[in-house]
Amino acid sequence: MLLELFTPSVQHALDLAGIFVFAISGALLAVRKNFDVFGIAVLAEVTALGGGLLRDLIIGAVPPAAFTDTGYFVMPLVATVLVFFLHPQVERIQNGVNVFDAAGLGLFCVTGTTKAYEYGLGLTYSAVLGLATAVGGGVLRDVLANEVPSLLRWDRDLYAVPAIVGAVMVVLCIQFDVLNAFTSGLAVVTAFVLRLLAMRFHWRAPRAWNRRSSAVEEG
Amino acid sequence: MLLELFTPSVQHALDLAGIFVFAISGALLAVRKNFDVFGIAVLAEVTALGGGLLRDLIIGAVPPAAFTDTGYFVMPLVATVLVFFLHPQVERIQNGVNVFDAAGLGLFCVTGTTKAYEYGLGLTYSAVLGLATAVGGGVLRDVLANEVPSLLRWDRDLYAVPAIVGAVMVVLCIQFDVLNAFTSGLAVVTAFVLRLLAMRFHWRAPRAWNRRSSAVEEG
Amino acid sequence: MLLELFTPSVQHALDLAGIFVFAISGALLAVRKNFDVFGIAVLAEVTALGGGLLRDLIIGAVPPAAFTDTGYFVMPLVATVLVFFLHPQVERIQNGVNVFDAAGLGLFCVTGTTKAYEYGLGLTYSAVLGLATAVGGGVLRDVLANEVPSLLRWDRDLYAVPAIVGAVMVVLCIQFDVLNAFTSGLAVVTAFVLRLLAMRFHWRAPRAWNRRSSAVEEG
Repeated sequence: MLLELFTPSVQHALDLAGIFVFAISGALLAVRKNFDVFGIAVLAEVTALGGGLLRDLIIGAVPPAAFTDTGYFVMPLVATVLVFFLHPQVERIQNGVNVFDAAGLGLFCVTGTTKAYEYGLGLTYSAVLGLATAVGGGVLRDVLANEVPSLLRWDRDLYAVPAIVGAVMVVLCIQFDVLNAFTSGLAVVTAFVLRLLAMRFHWRAPRAWNRRSSAVEEG
Repeated sequence: MLLELFTPSVQHALDLAGIFVFAISGALLAVRKNFDVFGIAVLAEVTALGGGLLRDLIIGAVPPAAFTDTGYFVMPLVATVLVFFLHPQVERIQNGVNVFDAAGLGLFCVTGTTKAYEYGLGLTYSAVLGLATAVGGGVLRDVLANEVPSLLRWDRDLYAVPAIVGAVMVVLCIQFDVLNAFTSGLAVVTAFVLRLLAMRFHWRAPRAWNRRSSAVEEG
Repeated sequence: MLLELFTPSVQHALDLAGIFVFAISGALLAVRKNFDVFGIAVLAEVTALGGGLLRDLIIGAVPPAAFTDTGYFVMPLVATVLVFFLHPQVERIQNGVNVFDAAGLGLFCVTGTTKAYEYGLGLTYSAVLGLATAVGGGVLRDVLANEVPSLLRWDRDLYAVPAIVGAVMVVLCIQFDVLNAFTSGLAVVTAFVLRLLAMRFHWRAPRAWNRRSSAVEEG
């Protein structure tokens, strides 16, 4: 491994936590879409594991990490059971869920970038795959639920940008040979905080030039 | 090979039959969606081969089996021609088509699980990939047709559960070292019969707790 | 390499040009779907690189070619910037864009078929993957934008057929051992011209038998 971001057991616990919160977002969408319990489980698994699966297929890490650790499979099932019985309560603490989701975003953009670089990709594409790891599960979730991916919509708070910043920080650290546990952690925290700020202040990205602004459309 | 479920030629004939009935379901949806003849062929191919393709990409069996046997490519084209000219008649025998589809479901959940295990995956993920082999093509079919995947909807008779039961039977047989042609065949038949019963008695899976039941909504 | 269709630098320039025009079509759809600037970039990248990515995953060429050349990543970003600022002008020259798109279609069906054959696939599946290279990005574009893939719709001018013809010409040349720069170029030009003719004369493929014709429906 290029670096040990944390001790392996801490890293594993963080991975499981990130997978869990991503699975919650998949399960909640499935409930809103009126899916049955198996549909909820499928959407939870895909949301949680889809980004890493995509990355591993592209870098040739088969079978993908998602298919080697039973814990990665069990966490989304736990999320499914929780949401199945308690979805009104989970919806009510959506803000709390979003904070954890932001943490997962920060963690996965950094670990995804690092893993892609370890498999021999260049710096640019390592960052691209870090982004894909962090946001790919959510895109697959929305595609399976037959919705326009939340990631692409202009009326959602910035989601890709924090992950891009985290991934770019990692490749800059690699470029200047200063990637270590501290700088990696800093990249995670930066992406995490940026996402929290984007949610707090409803930061959004512009749409194509010459369109009316959202304020006008909604006014 | 871990086991010869049947003699190779019988296995191959069964594979082709399963691919054919899956292709029929894809072609029928394409006709309902008003696709042209090439759209019908694409949807037939994707429905028939998508599940196995997904499995083979994940276990690293490239080029996938679907791309090594010309028969696998030709059967969906035969289904396309049949549905192109005779779709009203094929729709009318939908019940018969569904019986063959159930047989394909039973067959592919068992062969998919076995193949994944042969490629070194653990028991849990072998079963997951057996399920993915059996239902993946149908999910891709619905995604390409821009519909909510039938697999995830609460208002459809159980489809995943029979495949899960078949796949779990296989991994239990592997665990207890009793996987052979007879026990494999038993798993196929069990999944097949469960799916037939689910269709006959409209077995459905529950949606999230605290939602109104379907009976109330439809009443 | 089986053949050098052109000198490597010419081939690379053509690849970049094809990627660029495919990216334009993705970016334009993203603007019409009201995506933000990151959504435009994602759709441009996926449209431009998706077909080759799909082919490379299936033939086991990992990391895919799309992830080894920074130029392949940069061109869609250039297309994004262009469309972001000038989308009304780009829409107005849609006919010109379509001509370049037809050239990309012709080029990629030929290079895709050749690459698949070099990786050991049979003639039939090499042609299938040539088609997938040429049209796969557009299908992924439409799936991500939550639209019925343009490729499958009956009310669009022939798109798959020119690519199929180009791919089949290549495998016939391989079969008869006459594949060289001239015959490859001829296949590219044939697919290109067929697509131009299909657009000019609104050639369409038939829908399933016994449906009313489009003329009747629209009349």
